[in-house]
Amino acid sequence: MIKVVLIGAGNVAVHMAKAMLRSEHIELIQRFSRNDHNNEFFDSKIPKTNSIEELKQADLYLIAINDDSIEPFSEQLEFKQGLVAHTSGSMRLDALKCLASKGVCYPVQTFSKNETLDYGSIPFCLEAENVEDLELLKSFAGSISKNVYEINSNQRQKLHLAAVFSNNFSNHMFKIGQDICNENGFSFDILKPLLIETVEKLKTLTPFEAQTGPARRNDQKVIQQHIKELSGDQKEIYKIITHSIIKTYKSD
Amino acid sequence: MIKVVLIGAGNVAVHMAKAMLRSEHIELIQRFSRNDHNNEFFDSKIPKTNSIEELKQADLYLIAINDDSIEPFSEQLEFKQGLVAHTSGSMRLDALKCLASKGVCYPVQTFSKNETLDYGSIPFCLEAENVEDLELLKSFAGSISKNVYEINSNQRQKLHLAAVFSNNFSNHMFKIGQDICNENGFSFDILKPLLIETVEKLKTLTPFEAQTGPARRNDQKVIQQHIKELSGDQKEIYKIITHSIIKTYKSD
Repeated sequence: MIKVVLIGAGNVAVHMAKAMLRSEHIELIQRFSRNDHNNEFFDSKIPKTNSIEELKQADLYLIAINDDSIEPFSEQLEFKQGLVAHTSGSMRLDALKCLASKGVCYPVQTFSKNETLDYGSIPFCLEAENVEDLELLKSFAGSISKNVYEINSNQRQKLHLAAVFSNNFSNHMFKIGQDICNENGFSFDILKPLLIETVEKLKTLTPFEAQTGPARRNDQKVIQQHIKELSGDQKEIYKIITHSIIKTYKSD
Repeated sequence: MIKVVLIGAGNVAVHMAKAMLRSEHIELIQRFSRNDHNNEFFDSKIPKTNSIEELKQADLYLIAINDDSIEPFSEQLEFKQGLVAHTSGSMRLDALKCLASKGVCYPVQTFSKNETLDYGSIPFCLEAENVEDLELLKSFAGSISKNVYEINSNQRQKLHLAAVFSNNFSNHMFKIGQDICNENGFSFDILKPLLIETVEKLKTLTPFEAQTGPARRNDQKVIQQHIKELSGDQKEIYKIITHSIIKTYKSD
């Protein structure tokens, strides 16, 4: 059994706790949070502390707190045993300033508290300072998910950037789509089968191959009409993404 | 049985032919195409013509050709019986210049020839000049799909614009995500579960509620780091979408 102490009480921590409780090879022996935030989302059987001095001895201390807090928090960890790993996509391994061994265990997923997730397919991107620590992280992540990758700090930061485009920015495109629906009196539901298919396609096609629409065809009549209908941020976003798509397929 | 003549041989026509062949209430009596383009994607049992003079008498002439060709093609249709409907999201009903009744039957979906689609869930947005023609379109679309909407030309053009953002632009965000993966030596597969969840979330949350990431948190440290790492179009797209997301959540 891998004994784990979980640090944090945000969306990532909530889901990591759930994922750990389901695993037969992980024992979540304690969680740490300064306050009672999100208490209702955690199993009440998990022992909780709000004091760093009371942290139990564990194999793995999993830090799921916001990026800016990782460095100052880790500085307060004065023990030398065990492995301390953060879960951030954008922070380097050496953001950890503890005395114990350092690692990273980044789950590449978007976590909303009320969503049910298939933990078994979440990709975990791991980094450690030595082989033994990497093996521990592999055992830990591998007992939650079948998708485990070894990735260094430079790659992970790029991966996080790719995730921002693929997840956050595409979601904002959905948001603009919904705004246009609402402003014109019809339901965003009309677009949902299209959104599902947009992602479904990626099982067999690359995003490059899957592209369709006026920019893909460089259909200037439709494009100019759309630009005329838009204003503000929507217009600027339309123009620059259309320009980028046209450039992508220019050599066709 | 609704007798249909299908005009066109592109992606939309290929899939509309397949959808019609599966319906018990539709008889695809003929298809029209000037050339042999995509012949292999159509059932060879469908009678084909390349001459407007040879078009058979039908209840519905479904025009699935590119937007710019709809007006000049429809001008050549000199018969007065039946209903002529185009399938375009961006063209108005009055782009049709035929003598027969006019309508629109816009399937809100992205069509790639080699993809299998669940036709039963494709939203069809219908418009016609009178009640009888609308009823015919409802019978037609309703015998393919359970999602049938009545929408006028103004709304349809806005819907098409919303679809461009939600489908084409989100796909381009996936494309940029993939480019960043490739440039940094790891697989786009790592991001796929995240993309699936991005859309999966929309079953229970609005895109407004589903947003996460550095722009959502207005995490300027990460944002400035990302901007530093990017160049060209990617940088400009990152800046404007981040700006737009921050503005969206400013009142939080």
